[in-house]
Amino acid sequence: MIKFELHTAEREQTLDVTEQVHQALQATGVAEGWVLVFCPHTTCGITINENADPDVTADLLEGLASLVPRKGPWRHREGNSDAHMKASLIGSSVMIPVADGDLMLGPWQGVYLCEFDGPRRRYLSVSAVSL
Amino acid sequence: MIKFELHTAEREQTLDVTEQVHQALQATGVAEGWVLVFCPHTTCGITINENADPDVTADLLEGLASLVPRKGPWRHREGNSDAHMKASLIGSSVMIPVADGDLMLGPWQGVYLCEFDGPRRRYLSVSAVSL
Amino acid sequence: MIKFELHTAEREQTLDVTEQVHQALQATGVAEGWVLVFCPHTTCGITINENADPDVTADLLEGLASLVPRKGPWRHREGNSDAHMKASLIGSSVMIPVADGDLMLGPWQGVYLCEFDGPRRRYLSVSAVSL
Repeated sequence: MIKFELHTAEREQTLDVTEQVHQALQATGVAEGWVLVFCPHTTCGITINENADPDVTADLLEGLASLVPRKGPWRHREGNSDAHMKASLIGSSVMIPVADGDLMLGPWQGVYLCEFDGPRRRYLSVSAVSL
Repeated sequence: MIKFELHTAEREQTLDVTEQVHQALQATGVAEGWVLVFCPHTTCGITINENADPDVTADLLEGLASLVPRKGPWRHREGNSDAHMKASLIGSSVMIPVADGDLMLGPWQGVYLCEFDGPRRRYLSVSAVSL
Repeated sequence: MIKFELHTAEREQTLDVTEQVHQALQATGVAEGWVLVFCPHTTCGITINENADPDVTADLLEGLASLVPRKGPWRHREGNSDAHMKASLIGSSVMIPVADGDLMLGPWQGVYLCEFDGPRRRYLSVSAVSL
């Protein structure tokens, strides 16, 4: 299992981590199998979406913000219930097929950390299984 | 890894792919393990939901359309930011346990491609690991 | 594959199943790998979120209820289309890395069954693969 560290700069932000996942996969030596990217946090998530136009992930963050308001009748006193809820909507891991030692992402897909309560230091873990 | 092709006919549509996943699983020869169904696209997703009444997945599409409006203050110029956001809400893969060479879905569960920006030609990949 | 049974007491409720997942993992004997927790139902889901303050999961349930109304222009006659939609938003499984025979959850993470149409008897299956 390989861990890598990220630093987010905004409260809400996406970070393209595709290259870090690719490098971690190569370190595992797995050629045919699956790679798991796991997020050990509860106020950020991980997703796969378009890697070409950064407006897509910007729209994702704004769309989520309009669905899940920061201020609301939340009970949790830390004031970040919106971030916890977005984390469960987006999910805490992604699984990607691997062939010939490469990520079998579609041509428009990238892997994104979705920060919902930054700025913070974050970690992701990457591990792979052979089929 | 087995790929199969699908053709969607509407902008928003669900397609029951359970039988195709089952056939792909049999082709892998895995008897006890897990099967991964991966969607390499960024404007459709894949989910597990009820296989009995087609109104359930019709309601899912309408519910998502009312949550994520097609027209909005989106930046992405292709006009399909709603489809990208729905893809991240629904997710890009499902994992299903396998026993005795069969999908260990619950009695009411089916696997559905969720098209959010069709009609298009789509692909899904199916692969399996033995435990 | 290990199954365990749960009884929910409310229509909408979260149940912390982290300890049951941990015990099932130990029964598999897997020391380095991944564990899959799979929910074979279509009106409940499974997620990872904060294990410290129960207000976080209470807020998640209320936030989902305000996003997906129970009464709406739903077609499905059983009157639980909201529960089906929430199940697809939350997801039907979680995958967690395993090291030294332990769940590699973050310090604030727990695993939660999310009941959206209880009270009911529910099952979860747990299985693990070695890397």
